[in-house]
Amino acid sequence: MRIAVIGLGIIGGSLCKAFREYTGHYVMGYNRTAAVAQRALELGAVHEICTPEALKTADVIYLCLYPQAAVNFVKQYHDCIRPGCIVTDAAGIKTAICSQLKALAEEYGFIFVGSHPMAGKERSGFEVSEASLFNGASYILVPCGAPRMAVDTLKKLALEIGFTMTPETTPEEHDRMIAFTSQLPHVLACAYVMSPQCPNHKGYSAGSYRDVSRVARINETLWSELFLENREPLTAELDTLIENLTAIRNQISGGNQEKLKALLRKGRKIKEALGE
Amino acid sequence: MRIAVIGLGIIGGSLCKAFREYTGHYVMGYNRTAAVAQRALELGAVHEICTPEALKTADVIYLCLYPQAAVNFVKQYHDCIRPGCIVTDAAGIKTAICSQLKALAEEYGFIFVGSHPMAGKERSGFEVSEASLFNGASYILVPCGAPRMAVDTLKKLALEIGFTMTPETTPEEHDRMIAFTSQLPHVLACAYVMSPQCPNHKGYSAGSYRDVSRVARINETLWSELFLENREPLTAELDTLIENLTAIRNQISGGNQEKLKALLRKGRKIKEALGE
Repeated sequence: MRIAVIGLGIIGGSLCKAFREYTGHYVMGYNRTAAVAQRALELGAVHEICTPEALKTADVIYLCLYPQAAVNFVKQYHDCIRPGCIVTDAAGIKTAICSQLKALAEEYGFIFVGSHPMAGKERSGFEVSEASLFNGASYILVPCGAPRMAVDTLKKLALEIGFTMTPETTPEEHDRMIAFTSQLPHVLACAYVMSPQCPNHKGYSAGSYRDVSRVARINETLWSELFLENREPLTAELDTLIENLTAIRNQISGGNQEKLKALLRKGRKIKEALGE
Repeated sequence: MRIAVIGLGIIGGSLCKAFREYTGHYVMGYNRTAAVAQRALELGAVHEICTPEALKTADVIYLCLYPQAAVNFVKQYHDCIRPGCIVTDAAGIKTAICSQLKALAEEYGFIFVGSHPMAGKERSGFEVSEASLFNGASYILVPCGAPRMAVDTLKKLALEIGFTMTPETTPEEHDRMIAFTSQLPHVLACAYVMSPQCPNHKGYSAGSYRDVSRVARINETLWSELFLENREPLTAELDTLIENLTAIRNQISGGNQEKLKALLRKGRKIKEALGE
């Protein structure tokens, strides 16, 4: 298949490298900053730099841009997307984006399937992309009424490059889950390192500090957009977390060991029930 | 040196294995449940099971028990601790414990130095102990006025078994730092997994979920004791965290992207300034 990857950051760059490393598909890469696409070409991460003309030949297009930028790209280049082409995104939120891309797909005759590769690092950009980024990860599909064949094509491609799970869901359910699994830990990491003790932690910390603070090195432009596009589910998760933290805080402050133990036990049992 | 390790859980067990693996010191191990000490002997993790008689020959004693249990052990066996013997603990809190052990040291003529090996896992018990647990970790020393020679002896032993940092501090400063670096992430993990979304996370999660929830599999008996012995610093950290979470939550809820970005940027810059 002829694959176009739009945006060569950590996700787009890793998709290119993975398709080159693990499959025989033809890979075209586009990046707004041309030097990055040039670098991808030199490294062999893409077969060619994706021009508007080349885009017309793509069977599958992966939009790996910030959410609204992905929508804008399609608005700008819709006449370079051939009818029947499968277009997918990689955005971390779905409700706000899928409706726009689905409407554009219906208007211009391509097929849109939402997707979210559940992989990343605490750094961003092409330089940290790698073919193995998706090994063992989950590729969430949000079909939005697309033909079965298109969804299955994306599933097959995902499995070829290392993903091992391909759950399907609705935009709304995706956003509720992601608010908890991904967005909440990012908010937490930022709030956590704001403690006055943080700058002096060295020598006094180990795995717990490292794990909670890891993603505090956040790309605030991207994540503020993601958070605001998912305002209600994320606010609900934050309220739940603050409520549960406050409940534990009050038992510590009040010195009630039995009630404190009961709350901690509740957490342990949830984690154990998941077999983790 | 003749080393006695009291309590063969993950920390005590790992100390035994590390002294056996990396040093030539003679290692004696005691455990309340005798079968565990027997297993340690069979595995070669100790040279002998530590009896009250053997304890009298120890140059250094590591108390690897729950905090109050460590104090109780010394009260019970003080006549088996020879004068001049260096006794240290491994408790995760210091203010409440060091004062008691220092008083016992003065009463019975041994030397007490508080310590806290900053290592662990999300599982506990001898079965998960390992010689390499302390590789690259920090061994916090709380001298409490002990002779320099005793502090240096413990530092040297720590470096022999893989620790790479040996900061010295007061009980109070230790407890303020640990409230942030270790206790707060444990409270957080428990509160985090209490979200109604948690049981359904599989397929919708990646590293962020894994990292924040990791230590939710908590030993609630040990940690409720640690939290309550460190009530004031931990409550203060929780209040700070809840305040910072609420500030971010309010900008998300209010849809103010510039103010939200500024808060996230603040987190990123703290993390970056630490070179992490």
